[in-house]
Amino acid sequence: MRTALVILAAGKGTRMKSDLPKVLHPIGQAPMLAHAMQSGAAVDPERTVIVAGHGADQVAAAVAEIDETAQVVIQQEQLGTAHAVDQAREALAGFDGDVVVLYGDTPFIRPETLERMVAARQTHDLVILGFEAADPARYGRLVMAGDRLERIVEFKDATEQERAITFCNSGILAGDAATLFGLIAQVENNNASQEYYLTDVVELARANGLAVTAIACSEEETLGINSRADLAAAEAVFQARARADLLEIGVTMTAPDTVHLALDTVIGRDALIEPNVVFGPGVTVESGATIRAFSHLEGCHVSRGAVVGPYARLRPGAELAEDARVGNFVEIKNAEIAEGAKINHLSYIGDATVGAGSNIGAGTITCNYDGVMKHRTEIGARAFIGSNTMLVAPVSVGDGAMTASGSVITRNVEADALAVARASQENKPGRARKLFEMLRARKERRAREAE
Amino acid sequence: MRTALVILAAGKGTRMKSDLPKVLHPIGQAPMLAHAMQSGAAVDPERTVIVAGHGADQVAAAVAEIDETAQVVIQQEQLGTAHAVDQAREALAGFDGDVVVLYGDTPFIRPETLERMVAARQTHDLVILGFEAADPARYGRLVMAGDRLERIVEFKDATEQERAITFCNSGILAGDAATLFGLIAQVENNNASQEYYLTDVVELARANGLAVTAIACSEEETLGINSRADLAAAEAVFQARARADLLEIGVTMTAPDTVHLALDTVIGRDALIEPNVVFGPGVTVESGATIRAFSHLEGCHVSRGAVVGPYARLRPGAELAEDARVGNFVEIKNAEIAEGAKINHLSYIGDATVGAGSNIGAGTITCNYDGVMKHRTEIGARAFIGSNTMLVAPVSVGDGAMTASGSVITRNVEADALAVARASQENKPGRARKLFEMLRARKERRAREAE
Amino acid sequence: MRTALVILAAGKGTRMKSDLPKVLHPIGQAPMLAHAMQSGAAVDPERTVIVAGHGADQVAAAVAEIDETAQVVIQQEQLGTAHAVDQAREALAGFDGDVVVLYGDTPFIRPETLERMVAARQTHDLVILGFEAADPARYGRLVMAGDRLERIVEFKDATEQERAITFCNSGILAGDAATLFGLIAQVENNNASQEYYLTDVVELARANGLAVTAIACSEEETLGINSRADLAAAEAVFQARARADLLEIGVTMTAPDTVHLALDTVIGRDALIEPNVVFGPGVTVESGATIRAFSHLEGCHVSRGAVVGPYARLRPGAELAEDARVGNFVEIKNAEIAEGAKINHLSYIGDATVGAGSNIGAGTITCNYDGVMKHRTEIGARAFIGSNTMLVAPVSVGDGAMTASGSVITRNVEADALAVARASQENKPGRARKLFEMLRARKERRAREAE
Repeated sequence: MRTALVILAAGKGTRMKSDLPKVLHPIGQAPMLAHAMQSGAAVDPERTVIVAGHGADQVAAAVAEIDETAQVVIQQEQLGTAHAVDQAREALAGFDGDVVVLYGDTPFIRPETLERMVAARQTHDLVILGFEAADPARYGRLVMAGDRLERIVEFKDATEQERAITFCNSGILAGDAATLFGLIAQVENNNASQEYYLTDVVELARANGLAVTAIACSEEETLGINSRADLAAAEAVFQARARADLLEIGVTMTAPDTVHLALDTVIGRDALIEPNVVFGPGVTVESGATIRAFSHLEGCHVSRGAVVGPYARLRPGAELAEDARVGNFVEIKNAEIAEGAKINHLSYIGDATVGAGSNIGAGTITCNYDGVMKHRTEIGARAFIGSNTMLVAPVSVGDGAMTASGSVITRNVEADALAVARASQENKPGRARKLFEMLRARKERRAREAE
Repeated sequence: MRTALVILAAGKGTRMKSDLPKVLHPIGQAPMLAHAMQSGAAVDPERTVIVAGHGADQVAAAVAEIDETAQVVIQQEQLGTAHAVDQAREALAGFDGDVVVLYGDTPFIRPETLERMVAARQTHDLVILGFEAADPARYGRLVMAGDRLERIVEFKDATEQERAITFCNSGILAGDAATLFGLIAQVENNNASQEYYLTDVVELARANGLAVTAIACSEEETLGINSRADLAAAEAVFQARARADLLEIGVTMTAPDTVHLALDTVIGRDALIEPNVVFGPGVTVESGATIRAFSHLEGCHVSRGAVVGPYARLRPGAELAEDARVGNFVEIKNAEIAEGAKINHLSYIGDATVGAGSNIGAGTITCNYDGVMKHRTEIGARAFIGSNTMLVAPVSVGDGAMTASGSVITRNVEADALAVARASQENKPGRARKLFEMLRARKERRAREAE
Repeated sequence: MRTALVILAAGKGTRMKSDLPKVLHPIGQAPMLAHAMQSGAAVDPERTVIVAGHGADQVAAAVAEIDETAQVVIQQEQLGTAHAVDQAREALAGFDGDVVVLYGDTPFIRPETLERMVAARQTHDLVILGFEAADPARYGRLVMAGDRLERIVEFKDATEQERAITFCNSGILAGDAATLFGLIAQVENNNASQEYYLTDVVELARANGLAVTAIACSEEETLGINSRADLAAAEAVFQARARADLLEIGVTMTAPDTVHLALDTVIGRDALIEPNVVFGPGVTVESGATIRAFSHLEGCHVSRGAVVGPYARLRPGAELAEDARVGNFVEIKNAEIAEGAKINHLSYIGDATVGAGSNIGAGTITCNYDGVMKHRTEIGARAFIGSNTMLVAPVSVGDGAMTASGSVITRNVEADALAVARASQENKPGRARKLFEMLRARKERRAREAE
């Protein structure tokens, strides 16, 4: 079956109290819209149409980053969900497969749920996604007769008997494109809020003699986001799912509840993740690597046997080869750290390469910015960079070379050479005692003067 | 209605197993007594009297910091709650309004609850605060007849029927000062523990023909603290409330459960707070600011568009103007960071000003302490401080000036000047190889000698 | 009563999806096997026999670290739990007391539970440990008649009535060595999986006319670990217990849920532990010490009045005397910090001693590694180490001495002397402006060339 997705993403999300369009608020560090798009990928869509409205420019920019083949159409006025889907009509001209309608603020539909919807389309013209509600509250009830969906009854119109139904409408549906747009064209807005409701296609389909069914998913999947509190709850659901998935494949997490994952985090079996680790987007950690407590990783790759942290920050472009070590209070950005190299303490290595087996002393800084431009530092293999070395880029240090601690290196250091840039030490006997005496006397004088 | 507060804060809190008086144990980084005083502020009290006992000096000092107009009276011996309230009699001499009795170890009474108590005083002489207990256990039961409180029955004296009552006594009450002190004077201590119980005023009031009622609040409000476990639970309640309040006004918190707030934390709409952020007292974060993961803030102000962290520590007196940036492993203390200035890595900036648009290189330290006194560093606008610059205060760097990386700056640098304090670099060919050989040989020799 | 422990630790733990033997996966930073061994210590065993199988070498190495008197025997093939216990027969030759059989993957049995089992042996030949299961699922049911255990019925063989029993078998048992090994010798493997089940000794004991009973413990105690998710749940149970124990003795933890403890963590009354602190193995914190947020401690000792963090890392061998202070972004390793000494910012102090009352400036580094060997740094009392001092070990700084900030100290500094190793500062007027102009022009040129 050929399929297309229509994802409704036009809402303002007033209750979010935010200037950011609702569907761009992040879950697992990706816009919630990306989650809906990823779910939808399960049906292998030929086309994806995002219906944007509020903040359409921002939404379009975000969509382009997630899937450049997706089309964004604009709903100028928010006249209801049927009207929203109708905005995709032109973008889907000539498409004669199935349309699945999703919502940008409903990020947790499982791929297998959509697969079941598409499968149910074999035997029904229209498929609605329902869920068993623990507290059906004011959701629309799905009135079934066998596997046939009789109608959707809104709470306010429901009889007592209908209110007892707990199988509720998620708003998600699937149908043949021609059928669906044909039904939508018949939807009217003669209701209190003068909106065109997508839900009305069910009654129209029945009136047109079409076969309509509903299939069920878990209530968690249909979790929609309308407020900051909902967003925080959704983040918690995402994190719980993502942590469980990692535990399932054999990742060790001492305290999974304190590990914050992104939608695209990849971690291998027997990797050890200590408490309080934050993963930003784009991180891959290989099997057998260790990420120690209080580490923060974004856009980086950590190879087998490498040890990161505690208190390490890996920024985008950090590439750690096997058995590399990045220790406490160390920041790595856009730098390749070769096999077995060590950067253990209090350093900033940015725009650099560090060769295999090199040891970078505490307090080393690659001075990569001259106030206007960024430059690179190249360190060879088996080099020894003394503590507190400033590497003023562009600069290179050859294989097996050394720098004396406290040196400012502005010129290249050839292989096996020792670079020193350091003033000689002078010890002044008794001078510290005198200095302390002088400073204390001065402090007392000032205190007296202040009185 | 004129009101006064009497807050009982004399208990030792034996079960806390602490040398700190119980009411000074912190919740949201403020003494729990401060929470009770803040709740009480809802009734706009003319006078506030704190009844201290154990650790009275410490309690008085803390009260002076919270509200210098509050009076502290001493209960020399702990002879019961009625006796405690009686200690406030003299301090309230001449006051002829209402007295509301609160408890220093009951921090969560909502302001609106106290407002309702004061309102109920219009129609009743004495108003008791009750709560519906999920598990009434051994609380005193409030026996009501309509809106009239018949009596308070202690568990041990209660009939089966009375034990079935779930409406329980919180101990909090309100009454006219003269009436209340009049009743208290009649309380006797002919009971097992020979204490004067405040609860007895209810029976005395009824005997005196006074109208007594009870109003209800949620059980959470009456949460009292008697042990470290209670304290931890109270902290959790405080944090949950404070986080929900921030979400409600439109603050983005990726993982609210990992954000630790103080009683006086202020954060604006669309500010982004990443996971694992700790707010100490006295922090204001404007709308649109970003506080990244693992940051720690105390007594500071972060303006719109500023970005803090990850791993940034802002200490008291840190003032970040718009679009300022303070990055990883950076500590700021008593310093103004002007618009757009950047301090991105591994620096300590204390007792300083940094001008607009200046860039502070990695590893920069303001050497503000000479071993005896603290001194200030002044950096102008658009300055470029090279990595690992030591600024030995008192010292200034002018607008548009630069310091070479690795320089120790002890004299002022005028505007647009370049300051250099650096030894020249010497490369010694082949010397690193020889050094490594020598060190390895020495290590082997020592290993042989050790055998 | 003389006792011996047999702890079964041979399983592979396939569902852990790990190369590490299951019983070595850590809880509270100690192998789960160590927890079982620690529980077993309650019965004061004369001998402890660990039955290893998968990863026996690793298990044996771990056992040697936990208790060097414990014996490890190998179960070559995993033929069932009775067969496993039988591997201990030879190691217990000549032992004529009681044998208690525990499991290496069941870490939470309380010492008092084992004491009760041993006590029950006074009146019965065989004692089984059972628990009331909230959801008995497929556990074996303990069919009791008074205090007599009639039989253990597996779920699949149970009648409806037996399935209603909620008192279930934990697998843990105690019996006289001769009796137990005698029964085990009679166990057969004529069952579907052709295994020798330890459970079968109950039926054999009854057939031999022996008195068998079962005593009950809480279900939490019998928590077994088979998957990563189980392990994470067990870690949570351990942490909850350990935190509650500390609160009970009077430790202040602002947010106990964010404090991660090890099996051997010791913290004194009125110590303050802020949020997000991780304790590795071997840490002792005295009463009245403060561990601030985001600190990480391993193998160290913090004395009364000392303040650590935020963002401090204490590594093995860090010894902080009274009132010492270790501040943010500071790493201490194998170093004694004497009374009142301060290391407040951005420093690495390793393989060193710091004398009483000394002040170590920000950015100080002990350069303890020359690329081949480690060396020590000795700092006397009341010394003042200027910011960004490099102490190139081996080196010493005497009492009351000073180092100028930015100095590289390679030679010893005598008491009261001032050591300076610093280039003199030169200010070049207007040079920064020209440099900026030059750099900007270069950038523009490159941009033009790139077009």
